[in-house]
Formats: sequence, C-alpha cells, structure tokens
Amino acid sequence: MPKIQFLPSGFTVDVNSDDSILRAAMKAGIHINASCGGAGVCNKCRVFVEQGRFEGEELPDGGVKACNAFPLSDLVVRIPVESEMDRRALERAPTKKGSTWMRQARPFVEYAIDPPIRKVLVELPEPSLSDQVSDLERLMRELRAEHLKDTDIAVSPCILRFLPHMLREGNWRVSVSLKRRGTSFDAFTISKVDAGDTTSNQLCVAIDLGTTTISAELLETRSGKEIERVSDYNPQVSFGEDVISRMEFARKPEGLKTLKEKITQKLSDLVVELFSRSGRDIEDLSHITIAGNTVMTHLLLGLETKYLREKPYIPVASHFPWYSANEMDMGLPGHINTYLSPCVASYVGGDIVSGVVGIGIHKTERLTLFIDIGTNGEIVLGNQDWMACAACSAGPAFEGGGIKHGMRATTGAVEVVHIHPKSFEPMILTIGGKRAKGICGSGIISLLAGLFETGVIDRQGKFRRDLDTWRVRQGREGWEYVVVEKDATQIDTDIVFTEADIENLIRAKGAMFAGYQTLLESVGMTVQDIEQVILAGNFGSYIDLEQAITIGLLPDIERDRFFFAGNTSLLGAKAMALSSKAIEDARKVADMMTHFDLSDNARFMDHYVSSLFLPHTDLALFPSVKSR
Amino acid sequence: MPKIQFLPSGFTVDVNSDDSILRAAMKAGIHINASCGGAGVCNKCRVFVEQGRFEGEELPDGGVKACNAFPLSDLVVRIPVESEMDRRALERAPTKKGSTWMRQARPFVEYAIDPPIRKVLVELPEPSLSDQVSDLERLMRELRAEHLKDTDIAVSPCILRFLPHMLREGNWRVSVSLKRRGTSFDAFTISKVDAGDTTSNQLCVAIDLGTTTISAELLETRSGKEIERVSDYNPQVSFGEDVISRMEFARKPEGLKTLKEKITQKLSDLVVELFSRSGRDIEDLSHITIAGNTVMTHLLLGLETKYLREKPYIPVASHFPWYSANEMDMGLPGHINTYLSPCVASYVGGDIVSGVVGIGIHKTERLTLFIDIGTNGEIVLGNQDWMACAACSAGPAFEGGGIKHGMRATTGAVEVVHIHPKSFEPMILTIGGKRAKGICGSGIISLLAGLFETGVIDRQGKFRRDLDTWRVRQGREGWEYVVVEKDATQIDTDIVFTEADIENLIRAKGAMFAGYQTLLESVGMTVQDIEQVILAGNFGSYIDLEQAITIGLLPDIERDRFFFAGNTSLLGAKAMALSSKAIEDARKVADMMTHFDLSDNARFMDHYVSSLFLPHTDLALFPSVKSR
Repeated sequence: MPKIQFLPSGFTVDVNSDDSILRAAMKAGIHINASCGGAGVCNKCRVFVEQGRFEGEELPDGGVKACNAFPLSDLVVRIPVESEMDRRALERAPTKKGSTWMRQARPFVEYAIDPPIRKVLVELPEPSLSDQVSDLERLMRELRAEHLKDTDIAVSPCILRFLPHMLREGNWRVSVSLKRRGTSFDAFTISKVDAGDTTSNQLCVAIDLGTTTISAELLETRSGKEIERVSDYNPQVSFGEDVISRMEFARKPEGLKTLKEKITQKLSDLVVELFSRSGRDIEDLSHITIAGNTVMTHLLLGLETKYLREKPYIPVASHFPWYSANEMDMGLPGHINTYLSPCVASYVGGDIVSGVVGIGIHKTERLTLFIDIGTNGEIVLGNQDWMACAACSAGPAFEGGGIKHGMRATTGAVEVVHIHPKSFEPMILTIGGKRAKGICGSGIISLLAGLFETGVIDRQGKFRRDLDTWRVRQGREGWEYVVVEKDATQIDTDIVFTEADIENLIRAKGAMFAGYQTLLESVGMTVQDIEQVILAGNFGSYIDLEQAITIGLLPDIERDRFFFAGNTSLLGAKAMALSSKAIEDARKVADMMTHFDLSDNARFMDHYVSSLFLPHTDLALFPSVKSR
Repeated sequence: MPKIQFLPSGFTVDVNSDDSILRAAMKAGIHINASCGGAGVCNKCRVFVEQGRFEGEELPDGGVKACNAFPLSDLVVRIPVESEMDRRALERAPTKKGSTWMRQARPFVEYAIDPPIRKVLVELPEPSLSDQVSDLERLMRELRAEHLKDTDIAVSPCILRFLPHMLREGNWRVSVSLKRRGTSFDAFTISKVDAGDTTSNQLCVAIDLGTTTISAELLETRSGKEIERVSDYNPQVSFGEDVISRMEFARKPEGLKTLKEKITQKLSDLVVELFSRSGRDIEDLSHITIAGNTVMTHLLLGLETKYLREKPYIPVASHFPWYSANEMDMGLPGHINTYLSPCVASYVGGDIVSGVVGIGIHKTERLTLFIDIGTNGEIVLGNQDWMACAACSAGPAFEGGGIKHGMRATTGAVEVVHIHPKSFEPMILTIGGKRAKGICGSGIISLLAGLFETGVIDRQGKFRRDLDTWRVRQGREGWEYVVVEKDATQIDTDIVFTEADIENLIRAKGAMFAGYQTLLESVGMTVQDIEQVILAGNFGSYIDLEQAITIGLLPDIERDRFFFAGNTSLLGAKAMALSSKAIEDARKVADMMTHFDLSDNARFMDHYVSSLFLPHTDLALFPSVKSR
C-alpha cells in the first residue's frame, strides 16, 4: 500500500494503488479544487510530483492532473497555491484522517455448510423376478436402510416421470436430492433423482430482491464457493419508485398480476444469466433463497398488498412455505424449490431478517444497532437475547429519491464533496471519474455536511443569503448551491442542491434518528448504551462517518463502534442457501423481534420534530459536533 | 313380488315387476323360443295368460308376446307347444332355480367417516395496532390453540392468494381445510380457507379408472351420502383395447403424452359433469380418490410404462404421493388434491387393492378368493392375516374382446342364452329388450355353457359335425353356431359364435382356473379350502353361477360360498375418499400382498394346459359337473 505525502502541509496518507492522487487528497482531508469530479476536463486539480513513480499524463509545465494520476510507489506531491485553496480546511476536521471511514463488519456467526437440500449417493440392487419392488419403493428401501433410518420420507410427484430413466441410465446408482421438510430434521422430501454420482454438482442461488435493485449470486452448495454474481434494476421501478406507489399500482385491474409477472420474469432472467455466464448446468440448481422486504415478497408471490398499506398494516404471511418451481411460476425446471426469508411486519421485511441472520446479531452479546438506510429506513436494536425493530418511513432521500439532482450510485454520480471553508468552492469526486450526472447518497451526505460545517447553511438547513460566492443563488425553485457547473456535467445544466432537497434530507435523517431514540427509549436505554452500529446497504462503505454524524443521521458515539456491512440481505440469503441452521435462525429471529409501529407512536413524533435541526435541536445529543 | 306359475310344467317363480314373462321363464329355467332377444319382432314367444293382470298388447288370438308382457299381479301362464319346445330342458338343470344366481357380497368392514381432508371452523381475533400478526400466523396461532395443539401444520402456497380476502369476507371466521400429511395423524397441511362456516359443504369424488370404462361418484364428505354418479368409456380405447396395446402406443413419439392428455381431460370432464348435474359448487370439492390398474395409473400420471412390460416387470411406483391440482394437470381449482390407490405389481394394480379394501378382505377371518375377471384376470387369495395375488393374463374374452360378435354389456347385447337340448334352438334375452347387436360377457358364458351342456360342442370346444340343425354350420372362418338370424338383429348379418371364439374363451377360463390352482398350491391348499369367492366387476350380478362352473371358469365348490360384489374398485375408492383409515389400510394391504408372477411360473403353465378342456382335463376337480 503506497503512501502519499502532500506538501506544503506535510500530511501523509496510505492509499490504494487504484486511488488517484485527487482521491488520496480527499481521504487525507486536503482540499484541491476539482469541479469536474475526475473527468479531467476542468484542469483545476494540477499538482507536482516531487518524488516517486506514478501513472498519468505529464502537462507541459511538468505538473499532472491529480484526478488522472495514480501512484506506482510512495509519492511526495506538492499542491500549488492555486490548487490548495486553503490548508486550514484540514485543520478544522482533524478526525477525518483514517477514522472517518468505517471498518467492514465481520459476521458474528459462521454457519457450517448444511444445506436445506442435500444430495446423497444411493446404490440399488437391480430388480429381478424375485425382487419386483417398484422403482420408487426400491429407492426408498435403500434410502431408509443406508441413510435415513426411521425417517419420514415423502416424494415430490415431479420426480416420478424421470425416475425409471435415471435409475437405468445410472446403472442403479443415483444421486438423490433430499429436501428438509419445514423445520424438521427427520422429515425429508425427495425432490430430484439424477443418474450416477452428481453429488458434487449441487448449486444454489441467493437473491437480494430490493425495491430498486436485485442482486443474485450462484453458489456451489458443497463448498459454499461463490461462482457468479449479477445485478439489475427491479423492473417494477417503471410502475412506481417506492413500495407505496407499487402497492397503489397493484390495486389497479391486472396491476398485481403485472407486477408479479415483471419480477418473476426478471428473476428468471437473472438465474438464467448466472448459468449462461458460468457455463454451469441449471439442472444442478436445487434451490433458491430470496430475501426481500415485505412488499417485494408479497408482489413476487402475487399476494394482496392492500392490507399492508391500510391500518393496522397486516401482511398476508410473515413466514412462507417453500414454493415449488411450478408455484413460483418462474419457468425454471420443476425440481427447483424456493425459500423466502420471513418478514416481521408490513415495513420490516425479509431483507432485514436476512441481514440480521447474515451478520449474526442473534449471536452477539453486544448491544447492536442495525441500520438499513434504504427507501424505508429499517432499524433493529438488540443482541442474542432480545431484539426490537421499527421502520422509520425515512423515504428515499439518502438514495437520491426526491432530491432534484439525486441519482443512484452509478457512473457519473458525485460521491464525495468537500467545500472550501473560505471560498465555498467544492472539491468533488464522481464514480468512475466521469463527468457528473447527479449526486448519489454518499455525495448528498458529504454535501449537506460540508455546507453545514462551512456555514453555508444554518441549523435549520436554510442558506445564508449574505455569502460572498456566486455558488449560492436564488434559482427558479428557491435558494440553491451550484455543485457542478453545466460545462463540466453530462446533462447540459448546472447540478444544484436546493433548500427543498435539504428539507427532505433533514426530514429523512430526522426520521432515522427519532427511530433510534424511540427504540432505545422503549427499552430504557440511550445512544451511549449502543455497543456497535452496523450499517447495511450498498453505500455504507462510501459514507463519511464524521459527516453522517455531523448532519445527525448517525448518533454521536465512539467512532470505532461503527461498521459498514454492505448487502446484508444478500449475505443472509447466502447463509440460508447453504445452511438449514440459518433458515431455522431466520424463523427464530423473525419471531423474537418486537416490532414497534412508529406510525402511531406519539414519542416518535416528538423525537422526530426535535430532529428537524442540524444535527438536532438538543445539541447535548451531539457533543462532538457541539464542541466543533 | 309377483309369482308366475308356468303351465303345463306347473313351475312357479318369483319375479320382479319389471321382469317380462320371457325373463321370468328364463329365470325359472323354462325354455321359450325367443330369437329376437325381447325386441318383439320374431313373434315366436307367444304365451297365454290364464289368470292375473298384466301389462302388454293382446294378440288377435288372445295370446301375448312373453317378451313384451309384464305382470301386474300373480299370473298363471300357459306356454303353447310351439313355444315351449321341450319341458325336459328344465328337468336337466333343476338347480337353476334360485341358487344359480349369486348373492351380493356385503363388505366386512365399515369405515367411520374420517376423511383425509377435513374442514374446521376457526374464529380469529381481528388484527389491531397492538396485534399486528400476519393473516397466516394469526390463523396458525388460533388453529394451534383451538384445534391442533403440538401439531406440525404446513401450508399449501396456493391458499395465500385468497387468504386475506377470505378472512375479511368471513369477518374473521373461516373454514380451514386440513389435509393429513402422508400417513401421519399429527401433521397437516392447510389446503384451503373459505370465508365463513362452510364446514358442512365438503365434497369428494371417487373414481374407478378402468381400462375400458370409468365411473365417478360425487359424495358428501360429512355424511358419506352419494350425490351423483357418472360413467363413460376410457377415451384411450381408440389407441388400443387393452393395456398392452396402450403401452405399445405410449412408446411412440408423443404417445405417452397423448394418452395422458386424453385421460386427464376425460376425468376432468366427468368431474365437471358431476357438478353440473348435481348443481353443487366445485369450490367445495376438496379431494379425489382414484383406483385404477397399474398401467392406467401410470398413464394418468404420465409415467413411463416401458418397464411394466419388460421383464422383470417393474412399476415406477407402487405407492403414490398425493398430487396437487397443478401436478394432476386436470385444470381443476388449485386446492383439489388427488390420492391414487397403491399398486402391488405391474399387473396387480390399485383397482385390486381398492377392491380388497372396499370389500374388507383384510378384515375377515375366512379364506377368501377375490376374482376380477376383467381384461387381465387378477385374483387375490387370503384373509386378514395374509394375502397372495396374481394376474392370470386371461385376456378380455369374457368382456367380449377377441370374440367375433363380442360386445360390452350395453343395450342390444345378448345377455342370456338358453339352448334347447333337442332342437338346439336358442332362447335369448338382450339388454334393454332391443334387437341384438352382439353378445356380452354373461351371454358368452351362458352360450358356451349351453352349447357344452347340450352336446353341441365337445370337451375340447369343437362342434359336433353330425347334429340335425342348420344352426351349426361351416362359415367362412370355420365352424360356427348361429345365435341370432340377420333379420332379428340390428347389424344386418347373422350373429354367430365360432370355434375360434370358443378357443379364446377356453384359454381365458383356463388361465383363470390355473391362476386359482397355482395360488392355492403355493400356500398348500385346494379349492375346497376356499370359504368364500367374491366376484368383482360389473357383470358379476348377471353371471349364471352354474354355467360359469360348468365351463370351468369358477371352481366347483358349494354354491352358497359365491358372492358378486359389483364395482369393488369404486367401492374402495369411496372408502378412501371418506376415511383416512381406509387409505392407511390400502397401504398395508398393498404391502402385505405376496405377488406371484405367473408369467414365469412352471406350475402355472402345467395347470393352464390341463385347463384347456371343458370344464377341465381332470374331471375330479368338477364333481358336480361330472355327475351331470
């Protein structure tokens, strides 16, 4: 890992070899003017490399563009006065060095591989006139004798069509797929029979079914090895961005049917893609596990969502039976069974249960706050002994929803912003170093925090009208800050951040914080009792922790208690695909969670109203922010 | 019940009021010339009613046609010399009065009603913000609390789509259909949920799936009451008359698929017909039980039949899982489950097991011979302690198959024949009293027995060439007997009975008899040890017992040991539809039966060859026939 020392300040930072010098400077908290996000078009980020080797184009004057230069060894980099606008910027936030980025959470549980469907090799005596027992009874006889004494074995009708061929093709040696029935460990159903020994060819697929995106992973069941991974948007997006609008669409004639068809078709496509990419045989796929929120799960199964929306918010089911291929209607081979992660309530779904199981909160003694800042803002508080959960209705602002130039975290999204405390000029980085198209979640947090830290906005989120910068201006929709000028964007218009955006964000972070408070209060605790915070979701790794605390999105506690965990829903789905114990645990977790319905909670409303300040009305809750 | 006294012989016989005088004479063993079978066209059966009232047209001379006259009170009937050809005919067979007709078998078991799927009424507390449990968990909670403590309850995915509507439509009062899982009595699956109290509206259907005909009956599950019954031909008949030709057709490309589609469509049509006729709602149908032979069951399920035919004759399965509506592919509502009677071997199927259960052979101490003279001739020997079974490959001759003018037992079929011992003229009755179209099973037996008794054919089944009657003649296909002259038929040709027909019949009855002998010998017994003979199949009630013994089709033992039982396959299917115990017993019966494969049995071949005489090579086996 190379080091870069920045002159004249002398600060040194460890960097990855694929970090540009600009990104390294951002990590070190050193401001370099950079308004195109790394696209190499603004020419503002010129620096001089005084020692070391790097990859990147040298300019005629011997300088290089920091956004397009990558270290090949340790470097010493001098920032000219016109680039380093003000070194005092970094003095204002010394903690940003290192500790500002969260560590990755390591699961508290490692499940042994013990899949819900497993294959066993069975050898049968060939039939004869003196042993005329049927193919199926012959198989059962041997299974009972060799593998499953005193076990209740059932049979999936779909195996019977192929059974005689498999037995004879395999010369009376077959691999039998046995599916555990319910939670029982001594009741199995024969779900498939293959000719010969195919016991090492068992595959499974784990899917995170999100409101916006879907991720699917193909796993080798025996080893747990990840073979292939694909992601795509949820095609239901065209019928509504969030779960509420999807449920509204579902009420229309054919609406539910349409939504179900769209998503089953997409899942089917993704599964087929996993197999075509990996060159594996879909016949070897025995089961699929899917973790989705309650609404997504209902829509996938074609279940009525009307009562999820209406008071008192009742799901059709929270625990789901295994679905056969036929019942799932995905057009996949008949032997493939599907398991759906259990849900807790209308707005705390299988993705959260799966996340808890994946990370193993039910296996740790430490009091844990598990946060999924998605469109809904679900939170779980607890440990191995108890759990409470709630949905904060935070809305999708931190995913870019309802934000004028908000966008998802894809190429061209502004992902980090640093505001110069004197000139109020921004230093931005975009995903992929392309010209900006919009601002994604982590960019939104750092922008909001930066504007607040530099005093561009006040504690109520209103722009100061008296600043000496053209970037704060009155736009058509009210006051706004110009993040990227039109010429440096891909979208032929200035990218701006409006007061309305800020209002949305304050409401969203307020809902989250009020959620933590309400849950904590319900169990007689405060934020200081939290021993660890685990942040689920794709943007966890990009969030600047200090900034997220600054705006009051995360509680102001010891920084080393924070961990990001990535896609915990998928993590749990994988655990369930590989381990019956994880499936059993998911049931237990869903049952042990006490759900608090915040929509009807007066304390929550009080906390929420108090949270509509930056970082909060009650600064005592944010001592480190207050001290700055 | 009116009595008819026939003059001049003075014999009196009890008759049913819908028996014609001709049929009464046949019952009494009195010969009246009647060659049109009761169609009223031959004018040969003229008699005079000397006392009593009757319904029927009086002829100008004061006589009446015996075939078209029905008693309204006790009658005295004089048969003129030209009609009563020879009263000595009846002196030759005095036993024909009464005892020659078998009694109906009464089942040895009566199953209490305890269906495999039952409905329970469940009342739920309405959900509220303080009780937000999902619809399904709410239902399970109440089921467990009220009905099924400590029971393993699973859920059929198909219920979830309707569950929220049913709960709310029923105002939190629903009827839940619970299906027993496997043979377990403490594991249930919820297969349906109805709004409100529908517990009294549960229906089931029992089906006998025969190679030739199908019978289906609609039952009220709670009371066991029979509501409606329909029958039809098996549409697979057009692809082959018997199981062997069906299996041959199944080997062709798309053959199996075609056969499966034909039969599932027909079963579906029959079920729909049961409901449209009865005006009941198919939503109330919870399950269907089907009893068919092994080949029919395989074809219905779309299972490979190749190995049923090839040595060592192995079925795909002998016990079948319950099939969901989806898996049965009959296009019926998704909640309807189907149970298939278990099979014993390739040629001893679910119809036989169902018959044994229906009659209750597993519940009697008496040594029982159970005979199904269908296309295959299956026999079971045993009682509550043990059972042996075999298929005799008797062929369909006794159902009219392979017989030149053989036909099924429908309108226009010659069903009884009496041959005059001197003139060799026949007295015939047809079904429905219509002009003859052919000869059905019971007619074939009485024709063969009559020709043998009157010496028209010898013990090898060959016609005596020296008789003084035009009815025995050399036809195009060899020697034959003219049963009905062209003018009195519907088919514009003489109906004849050929030496080739007789050869087929002798082979068929020989196979049956050799089957009894082989089974009996295997357990160290003889025919005299048989305490009761139960004859399954539709024609049991029409068979003249004495004649069936005369030709060696049935063993020569005490006549009162014989019983006919009608459609025992349907009888058992009904028992299984109404009783889980019957289903459990069917499994036990199928498992306890020792199957003897006669196709490879040298003793069977010996017995068979010895049986190719009328009644048998060894006359000591037929003492009563010998004594005549």
